[in-house]
Amino acid sequence: MSSELEDLFKKIQAFSDERDWSQFHTVKNLILAVSAEVGELAEVVQWKSDQELAEYLKTPEGKTRLSEEVADVAIYLLRICQQQNLDFVDILNQKVEINASKYPVNKSKGNSIKYSELK
Amino acid sequence: MSSELEDLFKKIQAFSDERDWSQFHTVKNLILAVSAEVGELAEVVQWKSDQELAEYLKTPEGKTRLSEEVADVAIYLLRICQQQNLDFVDILNQKVEINASKYPVNKSKGNSIKYSELK
Amino acid sequence: MSSELEDLFKKIQAFSDERDWSQFHTVKNLILAVSAEVGELAEVVQWKSDQELAEYLKTPEGKTRLSEEVADVAIYLLRICQQQNLDFVDILNQKVEINASKYPVNKSKGNSIKYSELK
Amino acid sequence: MSSELEDLFKKIQAFSDERDWSQFHTVKNLILAVSAEVGELAEVVQWKSDQELAEYLKTPEGKTRLSEEVADVAIYLLRICQQQNLDFVDILNQKVEINASKYPVNKSKGNSIKYSELK
Repeated sequence: MSSELEDLFKKIQAFSDERDWSQFHTVKNLILAVSAEVGELAEVVQWKSDQELAEYLKTPEGKTRLSEEVADVAIYLLRICQQQNLDFVDILNQKVEINASKYPVNKSKGNSIKYSELK
Repeated sequence: MSSELEDLFKKIQAFSDERDWSQFHTVKNLILAVSAEVGELAEVVQWKSDQELAEYLKTPEGKTRLSEEVADVAIYLLRICQQQNLDFVDILNQKVEINASKYPVNKSKGNSIKYSELK
Repeated sequence: MSSELEDLFKKIQAFSDERDWSQFHTVKNLILAVSAEVGELAEVVQWKSDQELAEYLKTPEGKTRLSEEVADVAIYLLRICQQQNLDFVDILNQKVEINASKYPVNKSKGNSIKYSELK
Repeated sequence: MSSELEDLFKKIQAFSDERDWSQFHTVKNLILAVSAEVGELAEVVQWKSDQELAEYLKTPEGKTRLSEEVADVAIYLLRICQQQNLDFVDILNQKVEINASKYPVNKSKGNSIKYSELK
């Protein structure tokens, strides 16, 4: 893993270790935490029109709030990886490959049809 | 950014560009997609006891399924970062710092009390 | 409770009892199931513009799909109520009262500002 | 519809009308709001063991908190029904019928296997 990402991983692991929080971080609980944080991410955008949202995300407040909520979701995903010994970059690379075969360019270009409905 | 993570980012961007999918990837839609993928992640664990889940996640099938669902959520988070010019590693580092000040070790060690309830 | 709603409740309870599913329906698991079903609800709308979505929801297919996903979320909420002896209509009535005091008409009319930000 | 449920529906509709909130309540936004509220529901249980959660839900505080979060999710589901002219009780009754045919008692009794995996 790259040193930058490795440093982040170590920081997240240390944060949890220093607080003795591994006892709470079962996979099931971490997935509930991901769901809780996604709820906060949804709250950022829930009542804004696309136009209002675009304006809001140009402001420092909007940009910071979105960043923090995205980060909260991601931190718990990284905790799942740490608890289950999954390599974050590897599993994303592999999933992009799978997605590429489920959504061939010639069938999926310019549409959002689900792979199971593609003809 | 590190070359490994940079490569992943480029791959995810290229995947979307080749299919002309940026038109669908508004922030609001991407957050809905994050919510949809978290639903699939929840489905992996929803009816299993902690014991059954631990067994399942030791199997190749369980490990692969969890990996793929974590990756799906993460890929959409990275798409939000790409659409909004957020540096994924930076925003996570910053949020860990914020969390560290919200949850001081001497108050939070060994408990899961929310920061707003800490005394 | 009204007979119509009571009949629905009994049907949902009987569905679970006949399959001996109460063993899986812990509150934590039911909340994960709610999250899983909300993911499917999000999937219905995730890539559609407001205009496309309005068209889709006028079609029998769109209307049926939305109805089924809303129902799936609601059924698990009702299961939580059954497991915890909560009166569905009562708790909603009470929450609407709470919301009414958090969002007074004179402060909230025509805006979507969160109660904690209202002045 | 029963008078009790009808009264609740009218109250929820009036709450929104008095605040002129229909402008914010597009189906997409309401689904984001459902996701946000499910996040708060997940937060109630996320770090508790099954044992701790059972204790918590026996306390007035725990019972009230769970009730309020369940109600918040349900209220937005009812708003979706109101915006799309769906009969809440009808769509749930219909979905229970569908589920009964997807999960026949003789195949599903005592297990939590997904219908698509049932043999």
